[in-house]
Amino acid sequence: MDGADSANASEQGVAIVSEAICEEIIGRPEAFTAVENVFAAMARDNAYNFPVVREAIGHADALYGFKSGFDRAGMVLGVKSGGYWPGNVDKNLTNHQSTVILFDPDTGQLKALVGGNYLTAVRTAAASAVSIAHLARKDAKVLGMVGAGHQSTFQLRAAVEQRDFEKVIAWNPHPEYLPRLAAVCEELGLPFEAVDREQLGAEADVIITITSAFEPLLMKDWIKPGTHIACMGTDTAGKQEVDPQLLAAASVFTDEVAQSVSIGEAQHAIASGLISDSDITSVGEVINGTHPGRRNEQEITLFDGTGVGLQDLAVASAAAELAQQKGLAKQISL
Amino acid sequence: MDGADSANASEQGVAIVSEAICEEIIGRPEAFTAVENVFAAMARDNAYNFPVVREAIGHADALYGFKSGFDRAGMVLGVKSGGYWPGNVDKNLTNHQSTVILFDPDTGQLKALVGGNYLTAVRTAAASAVSIAHLARKDAKVLGMVGAGHQSTFQLRAAVEQRDFEKVIAWNPHPEYLPRLAAVCEELGLPFEAVDREQLGAEADVIITITSAFEPLLMKDWIKPGTHIACMGTDTAGKQEVDPQLLAAASVFTDEVAQSVSIGEAQHAIASGLISDSDITSVGEVINGTHPGRRNEQEITLFDGTGVGLQDLAVASAAAELAQQKGLAKQISL
Repeated sequence: MDGADSANASEQGVAIVSEAICEEIIGRPEAFTAVENVFAAMARDNAYNFPVVREAIGHADALYGFKSGFDRAGMVLGVKSGGYWPGNVDKNLTNHQSTVILFDPDTGQLKALVGGNYLTAVRTAAASAVSIAHLARKDAKVLGMVGAGHQSTFQLRAAVEQRDFEKVIAWNPHPEYLPRLAAVCEELGLPFEAVDREQLGAEADVIITITSAFEPLLMKDWIKPGTHIACMGTDTAGKQEVDPQLLAAASVFTDEVAQSVSIGEAQHAIASGLISDSDITSVGEVINGTHPGRRNEQEITLFDGTGVGLQDLAVASAAAELAQQKGLAKQISL
Repeated sequence: MDGADSANASEQGVAIVSEAICEEIIGRPEAFTAVENVFAAMARDNAYNFPVVREAIGHADALYGFKSGFDRAGMVLGVKSGGYWPGNVDKNLTNHQSTVILFDPDTGQLKALVGGNYLTAVRTAAASAVSIAHLARKDAKVLGMVGAGHQSTFQLRAAVEQRDFEKVIAWNPHPEYLPRLAAVCEELGLPFEAVDREQLGAEADVIITITSAFEPLLMKDWIKPGTHIACMGTDTAGKQEVDPQLLAAASVFTDEVAQSVSIGEAQHAIASGLISDSDITSVGEVINGTHPGRRNEQEITLFDGTGVGLQDLAVASAAAELAQQKGLAKQISL
């Protein structure tokens, strides 16, 4: 038997959580907690990501696909669906378009539809923030930003909450975008300085790279001992932000080892034999206390943030729960 | 630039098309046309399916995943998300739960959310109906059904519209479900008879197999010349409905060759070397007239219906369009 003609019995209550509601209810603390928890669950094998689908669809130069997974600890099942449409900017739309769809793990019924554009930005920022919280030196004072795109301001705001930073320095391939970061620093009351890359390496205690680069922007010899670097831009074969020798010299952490070695920043150091899979540690192990993380004040730690579907599901699930608690979610039936 | 802080500018109008609306507006003719068109587009390389994600999630014995694709001819982009929850029947829910999510191929914005349970049944029935329309003998009189589950009644109703059938005969591993088919036949004014499998093969001009079998239910020597068989049940490695020798003897057609040889009925004949990929023809080629289809009255034709994401997207897109035309779709913004 198979529920026969029970289409009506299966009518589903679905929560609709718009972009605007996500912006209202998911702040940096909520995103941080959701991402930290799911990284921890992944390292306990209590949450896992399904294979990623990513297709050049042959229309509008779009890259489209899905990231999905199941978090058994949080009982969150779903998919982030969407992609990158480079022509959207001309239509006054965000190039990255995404939607998160959550299902009830007990029945498979659709549970929530959550706008994914804002959440993608905060979950990505939360990942580097989690890495800073768990891996950077406690006495870090100077934050170095490499990249000044849309995502960079989210990164900056989340990072500065993790340590008592006294100054932000930045470099971008297109310097005309640096005022975007300067404006945030002014708002936060932090001194800001545009610097060249060598100076950035020499001064920064924590560095975030958040670009779409396909070549090393930071060389190993520019980075001082004790630095923590979060490489957040590389999420595709061929992309690259830092010197592979830097990964060989650093203790390397990541969200998911399988993605780190294939499409993350580590792909290049792996391909050239400088490091192997076993040299890369899930940051969840540090969160869980099964790996010590930073071992001393001289060590360079590097977080390869590749971006996993479970991050999206974690923040979207938090958004759906909060929206329902606060009566903000629209309920529809399907 | 990347649409900067334009989260509001990207607010999306999304059509919600419930299960009940789908049942109201998508009948067999609409499903037939949608599936026939997308099979034709696939054979012209104008539509293609993305890799299928299918995961045993390790909770509630559920199989969960996605089928997705892009139909450039119809400008339909999306994903069917969902799976199989065997415990649902005890909750008065359909075990198969699915939802179709459609995106605007020009911008990636979410366009429609469509209930997928009823549509999955009609699109599967439409596939065998399309195969009968294009491959069965014009003078077919006796329809043989192997299988009497929920899906079988959809198959039966769609099949009998394709030829002037005078009689329906049926066999099911569990004979207690056969009255389900008998009731539909009575409603349609068609004589119905429960038969054994040898008799079914000897009498039927068109056969539909729609079971969850893992072994051959029909042997080659039971099937008479000129028969058309639509094998609709095999969609996973290990499943099987008919004798592999039958595929060697027949002209084999399918929805998608890549799925037919890996998870479809042809997997067994392929694995044992009885046939090769090049022996299998996309039914879309017959629709497009680039393959003659049935060559004579004695030929056995076999359609391996594996079920592709583009079928789901095609019927869901038809449902969304019709619902919007008729003012039945709920519009929400995301």
